[in-house]
Amino acid sequence: MFSVEVRDRIMIAHSLPDPFFGPAQNMHGATFVVDVAFFREQLTNQNVVVDIGAALDVLSKTVKPLAYQNLDALPQFKGVLTTTEFLCKYIFDAVAKAAREGALGAEGKALAKIRVTLSETDLARASYEGPVG
Amino acid sequence: MFSVEVRDRIMIAHSLPDPFFGPAQNMHGATFVVDVAFFREQLTNQNVVVDIGAALDVLSKTVKPLAYQNLDALPQFKGVLTTTEFLCKYIFDAVAKAAREGALGAEGKALAKIRVTLSETDLARASYEGPVG
Amino acid sequence: MFSVEVRDRIMIAHSLPDPFFGPAQNMHGATFVVDVAFFREQLTNQNVVVDIGAALDVLSKTVKPLAYQNLDALPQFKGVLTTTEFLCKYIFDAVAKAAREGALGAEGKALAKIRVTLSETDLARASYEGPVG
Amino acid sequence: MFSVEVRDRIMIAHSLPDPFFGPAQNMHGATFVVDVAFFREQLTNQNVVVDIGAALDVLSKTVKPLAYQNLDALPQFKGVLTTTEFLCKYIFDAVAKAAREGALGAEGKALAKIRVTLSETDLARASYEGPVG
Amino acid sequence: MFSVEVRDRIMIAHSLPDPFFGPAQNMHGATFVVDVAFFREQLTNQNVVVDIGAALDVLSKTVKPLAYQNLDALPQFKGVLTTTEFLCKYIFDAVAKAAREGALGAEGKALAKIRVTLSETDLARASYEGPVG
Amino acid sequence: MFSVEVRDRIMIAHSLPDPFFGPAQNMHGATFVVDVAFFREQLTNQNVVVDIGAALDVLSKTVKPLAYQNLDALPQFKGVLTTTEFLCKYIFDAVAKAAREGALGAEGKALAKIRVTLSETDLARASYEGPVG
Repeated sequence: MFSVEVRDRIMIAHSLPDPFFGPAQNMHGATFVVDVAFFREQLTNQNVVVDIGAALDVLSKTVKPLAYQNLDALPQFKGVLTTTEFLCKYIFDAVAKAAREGALGAEGKALAKIRVTLSETDLARASYEGPVG
Repeated sequence: MFSVEVRDRIMIAHSLPDPFFGPAQNMHGATFVVDVAFFREQLTNQNVVVDIGAALDVLSKTVKPLAYQNLDALPQFKGVLTTTEFLCKYIFDAVAKAAREGALGAEGKALAKIRVTLSETDLARASYEGPVG
Repeated sequence: MFSVEVRDRIMIAHSLPDPFFGPAQNMHGATFVVDVAFFREQLTNQNVVVDIGAALDVLSKTVKPLAYQNLDALPQFKGVLTTTEFLCKYIFDAVAKAAREGALGAEGKALAKIRVTLSETDLARASYEGPVG
Repeated sequence: MFSVEVRDRIMIAHSLPDPFFGPAQNMHGATFVVDVAFFREQLTNQNVVVDIGAALDVLSKTVKPLAYQNLDALPQFKGVLTTTEFLCKYIFDAVAKAAREGALGAEGKALAKIRVTLSETDLARASYEGPVG
Repeated sequence: MFSVEVRDRIMIAHSLPDPFFGPAQNMHGATFVVDVAFFREQLTNQNVVVDIGAALDVLSKTVKPLAYQNLDALPQFKGVLTTTEFLCKYIFDAVAKAAREGALGAEGKALAKIRVTLSETDLARASYEGPVG
Repeated sequence: MFSVEVRDRIMIAHSLPDPFFGPAQNMHGATFVVDVAFFREQLTNQNVVVDIGAALDVLSKTVKPLAYQNLDALPQFKGVLTTTEFLCKYIFDAVAKAAREGALGAEGKALAKIRVTLSETDLARASYEGPVG
């Protein structure tokens, strides 16, 4: 199995309004370093998993609407606990949809799986991995 | 599959008294940066894999008895080659037991797997990954 | 010249309400990885610059009131542009005051200088360095 | 499942002569940081996956013929697009062959799998993972 | 003294045709991770050293003409040993010129100094630091 | 001012037998990642600060006698508190002596200063910087 993994980053504000989260119930924020890995069993004719430039571009377009935002104020997150784990899946869904729709080229539709990792500090990170289709 | 991974570290002394280990047969030591990843298929009601604070706490309690110790002098390691790989499994067993006993909350018992990674230098690391139960 | 440098981290929300900051005028947030370096010309009798444990403790106490906060809502930052550079100086002032008041031990008062570095993403960081007092 | 992962690095020149690669069609180059992970289900009698020293030695011997080379000029790469993904598989094949032939000791032949990761910048990396045999 | 440091990267080919360089006399290449730090004694009215976005933009424009190039074939490097140290100074000169000409804003002309660091592998890096003017 | 910085690492055991050090009074150990930076005002005729290969070699020879050792048992450290700060200076003295004696070539004698940094964990490091002569 081959993979290619690319990186971007966003700075966001949010709160986690459930007693479970203790001090993180407050409005606070995070820098998320976002790594997205694309997997496939065989390389394409150009000996790649996906075009790294296209992968960076898809990632950039996916995270841009979240950059410098207060997630509590975005309609798609109304009533949602926007944990790091949740955001991994949210970004996964958007990247997988872009792959299915051809944003990574015709062969990008044939990926075996995608993994999204968000590092929130030097001590903690989360990930979601699943099939594209 | 979702994961959350947290980090701690310990500084220990030990020797590896088998000719296989060459110069590492001497009493020497290591800083181990310890990363523990918790995996589950679905998020909990709070949209988490486990509470990151509880995970950091379980990890801290697990590695504290080893911190600033000479592993050769600890009864549980008598006659044991305390390689990095062995210590990954040792910490895995302790964290998995804590999870089964509820230290990560009721839902922490439902983890799919745990992975423990110990980085011993900038050039070498080891890991153990297995089911919790 | 000797130094010892220690690390902590905070997750905060804030806005930068000046057109100069473009999209960062929005309420957003950051994880700041905070490194504080202490410098002195000669080591103490114990062959240290400062006690690393005490240094980590002073740093932890300094940044804790900011952790999981919206800086816009804290009285000490009313009307202030809380840029990364500004926060370096704010933390520097608090750590230097703690050093002068003995929180790093009697010999902690004899430090030559202190440097505070805040990393806001994998691509950008700021620092402030100055004499202790 | 246990793993041990070791690191080396090479600096090479190459071109990727296919319009797919845009500016990377030019003669350019890369530093590849190479991480090789060895996996097995059970540890050996010495409580290791493989001897880390032998693993570092096998990796060093594998990448040395590529170090400070123009890959376009090497006979084994004639007409080949030497992408990062391709080079992962090339190094995987060489390391797996060395393991099968005993370069990691008698027990090195019993590895479950090997993973090779090449980091080409701080933002992008590729990997190949497969069985040894 | 305050600083802000930003990062970019380039992948280049070159040779170092002097027996001093041993195997690096061959055509080979490198990924250079480029960090540029800007220093000033006082912050601007917006509490910054320089606009981080402008700093990233100046750095990007400076290194772009080198990206995916064979330095041996560029006219400005004819007969020059393009060592990592030399390239630090080359990038320093370009960034300092941009600062003097106002690319970092009116206040960017008042910087105390600039430092350029190029990391060529995980084990080696070079830097050049000097006044802007 | 130019610099070149190179990296090596050692794994050692030691104790810090003074009540000041709390739990670190025990026999324990550390991985020290050792970075040595060489500084000079002007580059040599080959456009370098020092030969990176020679610098890595000097560093390797300097730290090798400490590798896999119990520092408490080495005659040169009898009665010495071998703190991270102390070891920075110890390695600095050895590297500076090698430079003065020509191990970095004739031009290595003209260095302006050297800085030695030892990272003991992901959270703490120490350094010593001074003139060569």
